[in-house]
Amino acid sequence: MGEFELIRHYFAAAACAQAADGVVLGIGDDCALLEMPAGEQLAVSTDTLVAGVHFPVDAPGELLGQRALAVSVSDLAAMGATPLAFTLALTLPEVSPDWLADFTAGLERMARQCGVRLVGGDTTRGPLSLTLTVFGRVPVGLALTRAGARPGDLLCVGGTLGNGAGALPFVLGERAEQVHSAELLAHYWSPAPQLQLGQALRGLATAALDISDGLLADCEHIAQASGVALFIEEAQLPLSNALLACMGDEAARQLALGGGDDYVLAFTLPAEKLDALRAMGQPVWVIGRVEAGQGVHLLDADGRVIKPRYSGYQHFGSNRD
Amino acid sequence: MGEFELIRHYFAAAACAQAADGVVLGIGDDCALLEMPAGEQLAVSTDTLVAGVHFPVDAPGELLGQRALAVSVSDLAAMGATPLAFTLALTLPEVSPDWLADFTAGLERMARQCGVRLVGGDTTRGPLSLTLTVFGRVPVGLALTRAGARPGDLLCVGGTLGNGAGALPFVLGERAEQVHSAELLAHYWSPAPQLQLGQALRGLATAALDISDGLLADCEHIAQASGVALFIEEAQLPLSNALLACMGDEAARQLALGGGDDYVLAFTLPAEKLDALRAMGQPVWVIGRVEAGQGVHLLDADGRVIKPRYSGYQHFGSNRD
Repeated sequence: MGEFELIRHYFAAAACAQAADGVVLGIGDDCALLEMPAGEQLAVSTDTLVAGVHFPVDAPGELLGQRALAVSVSDLAAMGATPLAFTLALTLPEVSPDWLADFTAGLERMARQCGVRLVGGDTTRGPLSLTLTVFGRVPVGLALTRAGARPGDLLCVGGTLGNGAGALPFVLGERAEQVHSAELLAHYWSPAPQLQLGQALRGLATAALDISDGLLADCEHIAQASGVALFIEEAQLPLSNALLACMGDEAARQLALGGGDDYVLAFTLPAEKLDALRAMGQPVWVIGRVEAGQGVHLLDADGRVIKPRYSGYQHFGSNRD
Repeated sequence: MGEFELIRHYFAAAACAQAADGVVLGIGDDCALLEMPAGEQLAVSTDTLVAGVHFPVDAPGELLGQRALAVSVSDLAAMGATPLAFTLALTLPEVSPDWLADFTAGLERMARQCGVRLVGGDTTRGPLSLTLTVFGRVPVGLALTRAGARPGDLLCVGGTLGNGAGALPFVLGERAEQVHSAELLAHYWSPAPQLQLGQALRGLATAALDISDGLLADCEHIAQASGVALFIEEAQLPLSNALLACMGDEAARQLALGGGDDYVLAFTLPAEKLDALRAMGQPVWVIGRVEAGQGVHLLDADGRVIKPRYSGYQHFGSNRD
């Protein structure tokens, strides 16, 4: 048995790979078998992370494991889906038992947190990269897409913005850590997919997605898919104290608008649903509104359209896609 | 819009990415949505192919596209599943429109042949590799696993063996092409997943898989999962005329036993089901039998256990996993 065959057995033995509701057959056959209750649809999303492009090549295995899974599960949250399972395709330049144990520990923690089971995958030799495919269930007709926003709806987000991007100088070692950077780093390495919020939004929100590319870029996706204009009030952007303390007010706002790596939900909501959502104890910040038209527009405190001032923001690596 | 964003739009516009039965929502949102009829389970499989490890770095895009999808769909055939959809995570060192058009043409051809839709994925920059995740449907209780072989069953395969491995010297340019090599190369670059056979085996076969690592290695998987011994009669191995012509009798048998890359189904079948399967017009070669015990055993023409003579066979690349 080769060392990569051993890795496959290693993953098959992981706690998150054991049998669970909905998983009829897990790792070890030609396919896994998943059960879908009647009246539910399967939500599927695939993400690839490449070392040196999406994360530092020397990223600690544990942090990488938990972050990779969280980023993928966030797509399920954005559809209002209930997580079910995932597959992991892991390409490694070499087999390091320590790294593998660390990576699996991070994966296990996030899998437990998100209620998702490892049901298959592949381990191959090559430059370090990961492709995760996640599966979730969502009742027929209740999935949240990007296409339903209507004029009059409120534009909302489910948490503070810019933290992931604000963490980047610390992740890359470009800035020395400080009292507030730990909170930003936690946000970067262990984003919490907003699964409860996504499920609460079923039947309430008209459109939703998770912010990965940055608020402005992702709102553009909603505007396009829904055929509407989105107006964002800059003064309403929720910013964490940690981000403000590390970056200052102006840079914090720029990161909130353009930074990406938030993995917080953005959604549109008929105004009359706001109280219901808040009564459910869900986090919600109203940051703007939907109107007829197209594009994404930023408003200053006086309601005048202004040009976003952020420009040169870069994700990790210069050639990320 | 970056060039990789353009590629995502390119794939979204492909014929195989358009709406179809069972695909409620395709490429372009946070998740795809698939519909599962009541009484069916979802079969899922993930495979990664890395340039220089699983295929030559200069492999023609069209051949790579069709082969990658065929290899993945073959896992669905092995479960008796009906193909539904797939996701493609493609990592590319650079964007070549010509290569991309070729790759997509190959992918489209195989997607049409297998009846499978592209529903999502990711395109990233990095060393060339592909991860495909395929989805199929199979009626509850009828999936073919590796675990059901019983003493007394026949051991069967669905086609001639060793062709993919026999093609390798031609794929790698180590041997000059000749009159019969075209047939072997076709087998390597365009394996035909045995979907009809897999579906016909539902309720008939007791165990099944597709031969990717080589007959002996894959039969070991059935023997282990089922807790039985498998006896293979060497004289019964089906060999193509092309393989015999290119390799000679002895090497052809060795490739059939240990070569891999066949993507032909191997399965165990109660003897009384053989006529029914043949009456359905399905290809079937009986190559041995299942007995109580363990392990895989090779028999000569006189029924004596012999040691497999193949040894130094290598898959493409020296470090394939």
